Amino acid sequence: MPARNRARAETPPAATHHRALPVHTDPADVPLETALLALADPVRRTLVRELAADEDWRRPCGSFDVPVTKATLSRHFSVLRDAGLLEQRDVGTKRLNRLRRAEFDACFPGLLDLVLRGEAGSAD
Amino acid sequence: MPARNRARAETPPAATHHRALPVHTDPADVPLETALLALADPVRRTLVRELAADEDWRRPCGSFDVPVTKATLSRHFSVLRDAGLLEQRDVGTKRLNRLRRAEFDACFPGLLDLVLRGEAGSAD
Repeated sequence: MPARNRARAETPPAATHHRALPVHTDPADVPLETALLALADPVRRTLVRELAADEDWRRPCGSFDVPVTKATLSRHFSVLRDAGLLEQRDVGTKRLNRLRRAEFDACFPGLLDLVLRGEAGSAD
Repeated sequence: MPARNRARAETPPAATHHRALPVHTDPADVPLETALLALADPVRRTLVRELAADEDWRRPCGSFDVPVTKATLSRHFSVLRDAGLLEQRDVGTKRLNRLRRAEFDACFPGLLDLVLRGEAGSAD
């Protein structure tokens, strides 16, 4: 049964991960609306700014200074992944994060800069 | 009573307008979040694109090709004014519109360009 063997070989062993692997969306597949809505939330802008201020893959999910529950934070990470802004990978027991700055900039030039420079006129 | 006379002179005569004058917000006073949310709506992006494609003050409120009721359209105009994107003035029985492109660009560089060029990756 070569067909069944091939199918089995392509499926990664499920038991090696404690939780579902994060699903990522390429910024090139992200509608403008999704990108705008992702960045319209103050908690997500804080996450983006903290990631931009640090090295790639340095920040585990629990290291961000935002006043939300773990479940809410998890939802914010999901929205950022869906907007092509965030890449995550599990290393040991930690999930590490990277801002997809260059890829996102290529698709939405100027948008991340607006967020990272702070606010235009008045307060955030 | 010079004080009372002054106050009276500064108040425009209310009876000359059939409806309330539109209230405008300067783009410099608009938080980034308000600007992002205003442009995250597909109907408002259509209004912005149609305004950008025409001359200032050429478009009356009823001239836009959007599938919404008059009341909903009025709400969209209000959101655009609050985001510093739209200026309106009444001429006769018509309310005419102008995209505040230069002022908005100065406060949120690149943001309008993203909307006007269409969508980055996939569909709108």
